[in-house]
Amino acid sequence: MRNKYLDTVTLDEALAVALDKLTPPISAEIVKSADALGRVTSEAVYARWSVPHYNASAMDGVATFSGRTFGATETTPTVLSAGEYQPVDTGDPLPFGCDCVIMAEDIIEHESGAIELHAAAAPYTNVRQIGEDVCQGEMLLPQRTVLTPAALGALLAAGVWEVSVLKRPVVGIIPTGDEIVPPVKTPEKGEIIEFNSSIFAGMIKNAGAEARVYSIAPDKLDSIKAALLEAARDCDMILINAGSSKGREDYTAAAIRELGEVFLHGVSIRPGKPVILGRVGATPCVGVPGYPVSGYIVVEQLVLPAIRAMLGGAQPELHIDAVLTRPLQSPLNYREFVRVKLGQVDGRCVVTPLNRGAGVITSLTKADGILDIPLDTERLEAGEAVSVRLLRREDEIESTIVIIGSHDPLLDELADIARADGRFISSSHVGSMGGVTAMRRGEAHVSAIHLLDEQTGAYNKSYFDKYFKDSNVRLYKGVGRAQGLIVQAGNPKGIRSVADLTREGMRFVNRQRGSGTRILLDYLLKTEGIAGESIYGYSREEYTHLSVAAKIASDDCDAGLGVYSAAKAYGLDFIEIGWEDYDFLVNGAFAHSDEFAVLLNWLRGGEFARRLTALGGYSLDGIGERLL
Amino acid sequence: MRNKYLDTVTLDEALAVALDKLTPPISAEIVKSADALGRVTSEAVYARWSVPHYNASAMDGVATFSGRTFGATETTPTVLSAGEYQPVDTGDPLPFGCDCVIMAEDIIEHESGAIELHAAAAPYTNVRQIGEDVCQGEMLLPQRTVLTPAALGALLAAGVWEVSVLKRPVVGIIPTGDEIVPPVKTPEKGEIIEFNSSIFAGMIKNAGAEARVYSIAPDKLDSIKAALLEAARDCDMILINAGSSKGREDYTAAAIRELGEVFLHGVSIRPGKPVILGRVGATPCVGVPGYPVSGYIVVEQLVLPAIRAMLGGAQPELHIDAVLTRPLQSPLNYREFVRVKLGQVDGRCVVTPLNRGAGVITSLTKADGILDIPLDTERLEAGEAVSVRLLRREDEIESTIVIIGSHDPLLDELADIARADGRFISSSHVGSMGGVTAMRRGEAHVSAIHLLDEQTGAYNKSYFDKYFKDSNVRLYKGVGRAQGLIVQAGNPKGIRSVADLTREGMRFVNRQRGSGTRILLDYLLKTEGIAGESIYGYSREEYTHLSVAAKIASDDCDAGLGVYSAAKAYGLDFIEIGWEDYDFLVNGAFAHSDEFAVLLNWLRGGEFARRLTALGGYSLDGIGERLL
Repeated sequence: MRNKYLDTVTLDEALAVALDKLTPPISAEIVKSADALGRVTSEAVYARWSVPHYNASAMDGVATFSGRTFGATETTPTVLSAGEYQPVDTGDPLPFGCDCVIMAEDIIEHESGAIELHAAAAPYTNVRQIGEDVCQGEMLLPQRTVLTPAALGALLAAGVWEVSVLKRPVVGIIPTGDEIVPPVKTPEKGEIIEFNSSIFAGMIKNAGAEARVYSIAPDKLDSIKAALLEAARDCDMILINAGSSKGREDYTAAAIRELGEVFLHGVSIRPGKPVILGRVGATPCVGVPGYPVSGYIVVEQLVLPAIRAMLGGAQPELHIDAVLTRPLQSPLNYREFVRVKLGQVDGRCVVTPLNRGAGVITSLTKADGILDIPLDTERLEAGEAVSVRLLRREDEIESTIVIIGSHDPLLDELADIARADGRFISSSHVGSMGGVTAMRRGEAHVSAIHLLDEQTGAYNKSYFDKYFKDSNVRLYKGVGRAQGLIVQAGNPKGIRSVADLTREGMRFVNRQRGSGTRILLDYLLKTEGIAGESIYGYSREEYTHLSVAAKIASDDCDAGLGVYSAAKAYGLDFIEIGWEDYDFLVNGAFAHSDEFAVLLNWLRGGEFARRLTALGGYSLDGIGERLL
Repeated sequence: MRNKYLDTVTLDEALAVALDKLTPPISAEIVKSADALGRVTSEAVYARWSVPHYNASAMDGVATFSGRTFGATETTPTVLSAGEYQPVDTGDPLPFGCDCVIMAEDIIEHESGAIELHAAAAPYTNVRQIGEDVCQGEMLLPQRTVLTPAALGALLAAGVWEVSVLKRPVVGIIPTGDEIVPPVKTPEKGEIIEFNSSIFAGMIKNAGAEARVYSIAPDKLDSIKAALLEAARDCDMILINAGSSKGREDYTAAAIRELGEVFLHGVSIRPGKPVILGRVGATPCVGVPGYPVSGYIVVEQLVLPAIRAMLGGAQPELHIDAVLTRPLQSPLNYREFVRVKLGQVDGRCVVTPLNRGAGVITSLTKADGILDIPLDTERLEAGEAVSVRLLRREDEIESTIVIIGSHDPLLDELADIARADGRFISSSHVGSMGGVTAMRRGEAHVSAIHLLDEQTGAYNKSYFDKYFKDSNVRLYKGVGRAQGLIVQAGNPKGIRSVADLTREGMRFVNRQRGSGTRILLDYLLKTEGIAGESIYGYSREEYTHLSVAAKIASDDCDAGLGVYSAAKAYGLDFIEIGWEDYDFLVNGAFAHSDEFAVLLNWLRGGEFARRLTALGGYSLDGIGERLL
């Protein structure tokens, strides 16, 4: 592939440009201190008065002059007559002539009004002295300090009712594209919902700035220029969400160049390469690529650092040490940001990479962290120790039950049941053989499998014997599932069995190699003496039952093999082939944990049964029993 | 001291009560997805349609049927006539009959309109297939998920315009107390500004709940009951900010008991002991102690965990491994939360405890972390490894320049100058000899000292020779400072020298032992043959020049020894005694760092000189030169 970005620079170089050129000075504004939570001071703040502003009793008791208490002991108490002390409550000013407070509990009162003390008090005992906390004129907070709840308290205590803070930088977001439609209607084919601006706006707000989303600008140079000029008037920074298509980018770069300057175009990162840094007049402007994950990475790596620099902060980053359980390729000469799931299994934190497509927004919602692969690295090896930047809290990751293997919608329902109990389940869909591999590699607490033994017609047990016989891995009974051919509603093509899949004009969609459903299909084809290559679409592989059903429902295909619940979810017809055993491999150490006991309770509970009944096509007999 | 909380329980026991009894179920509400940043899903969210919802070109190029490309190679290209392909842009729907897209860059166009291909394409090459990201009906997010920017994007992409989220729990805050006044006027003696509710409200907002602050209720049982009943109607939880005085607490406990139930009263923590957990009707109610740090600890340890549990989350906590450089006492049978400063010196993170008073709000604004000392621990030893809960970011702490020693307002100005450069300086005021000790213990990068040698009349050098001769510690020139007697404006008592301090009715305020100013005073007294004990207030020790000046300005004292800038800040009179050298000890490794070069630049820069001129009483000759 030819590189069309002749001037591609590294991320570090681009970040230096962003911090130098995209950080205009931000002016200040006065706000009420009580409303200033999370704001950033624009200048040092000094106390208007001392705290306390008078000598105050720190206790309920009596105030007196310390000299009168000297010599008092348990055996030789000192008696003060009614005129020699004054009762005080906590916070009361120290009466004139008094310099200490005796606690109420340490006094014996006489009927006469005199009191008896059994210990001497030094001057200023139990007195909160003027300025103990803050002295008038003292610097309370330096500039560029984020106002915490405690800081608000200190400001108010010291009489600072109003505080000068940095204005929130205003970041304008301009979506562009003829095919982009706002999120208010069901999109037609060829229309794409504009959702990137909500992602970017959220990131910008979380960084302490204000996001202003403009209406969608069509793919015309004049429209883009007009939108840029409007935003440049009102904003401290502009993000223009160009698509990554060549034509549109050229508009963006051209428009910025005509109205100001392009500092750089293209950064050697993946995803996120086609970024533009520039200015429109004096207003910094970033051309953000159109694929959502590309845009996310560009905003995170280049825009947020600039915003945080304007506000005097830096990007907080937390990392976790983890280990790769499989090799990972990465393009040379690109720094790649791979979204990963993490799991704490057998005492180590293991990495499972997610879909690396720049268009897959759910790779971000599912991610626990981001693995940052350097420019000069082409391959990470299995067993390699890596540092992963966290997107979730470490303690949540440590307490998450990791399920890897065959897909079924019931795993999502199980994850939802776990959340109701304040716990977490993460599931990755890699097929049954992928589940076997994950369990062997120590990546998962639980692996879901449905593997047919062609010799015996039985499920899972022979695979367990082959791969886990001498290990401490266990096999637990899961659910029975109805498998069959999913076809369009009303079965317009009259499909009755796998033999019909070879018919002229029939469009099949397959599951990936290693999935239990693929193994079942290949077994059925072999039984009928049908070659896979004789079926159109045999090589078209999907990873979940739902994605097979989605293609059939949208008339992209005519048939696929899958579970009843997927057909039902889309209102499709289902030609049952048989029931199979969808069981759970369980890591040996995990099988002894309290978490596993909790998991078994969910599986056996009424809520799970209710949900599986609603999904349809499941049998729960013996669920949670140990098989091997 | 007698324990008036007969039923005092441990924090763990109290937390169990809080999580059990203070977490009412929270109802749900529907909000626009685009506005739902940071909200928490109340139920699982499912995709309304697939993403993409049609087979889309992933590139700019031409769409065709993959079968027509088979056999194409570099040497035997395939030629497609004009009718056999269709130009497509990224995002365009795949035209009928096409199942792949060839990138524009890989095509050679003929004049005839035909195109030449040099490689075969498999079916669905460069096609984003229906449901690649999300399948219709798939669970997008389980319940109790915090909505991140990426999650908002996924919701909108999948057609979920509105989302059901948990309502923000409403937490009512009732300040009480006859001496409490709202932060709108200059308080008189005996009046205390109500600032606790702003601290608690900020903490509650940061935890995702809504805070509703009620007006101040007077110290009367009926008023407190009325306020509790009103809040119970409107709120999911009530905080009533009782003072820690016995009388007021009794009102609160009595009011809660009459309107509902007291679950517990008193927890064995310091600060924070006099907490009440109870209910008013069915509404959970917490009696929060009145001292701000006590209240902060109670809200942090008992209220926020309950709020987070309502929202399905837990309290995020980050810790850092650190080392104590001095022993630390703690009361047996109390779990104590000590606010500490942290510094990265000589490759280890060292702990400096802050003021442990429950009333000192600035101990929280200055704190980098909280050291949690268990119930059964009476003493931590110097050199002991401890784990400190972080209140600031670890990378900020690692990059902070730590200055410990003699106090001067110039250190605060320096810290403010550092913030303008995006850097951090932390300074602790322990006096000059405290600075020497801190440098010897490896607690500080820089120690500020002004130590008079009584033999020579010179400053600092002989102390350096005594303590640091064979170390790698260095001495750098700081500023000259005018020291003198600070007296009330107009000098009403006609004070001329230290000899006047012994006069009848004279009220002196001293500095702490080990401070350079105290050493100077004792030297002056010795010279004049005056005994310290003959001065009223000689034993009254303050830690900073400003706190000495604050006491004189408020007519609490008549005189103290201190620097000119402190007198000037309060408009007080100043009787100059002489100029002294306020210099800097510098850690050897730090002296070689870039940070030290930056620090020297600040000291020698125009901004620092301008600020010191404004403060008054400083000379900057030779600042930053190495002395030893």
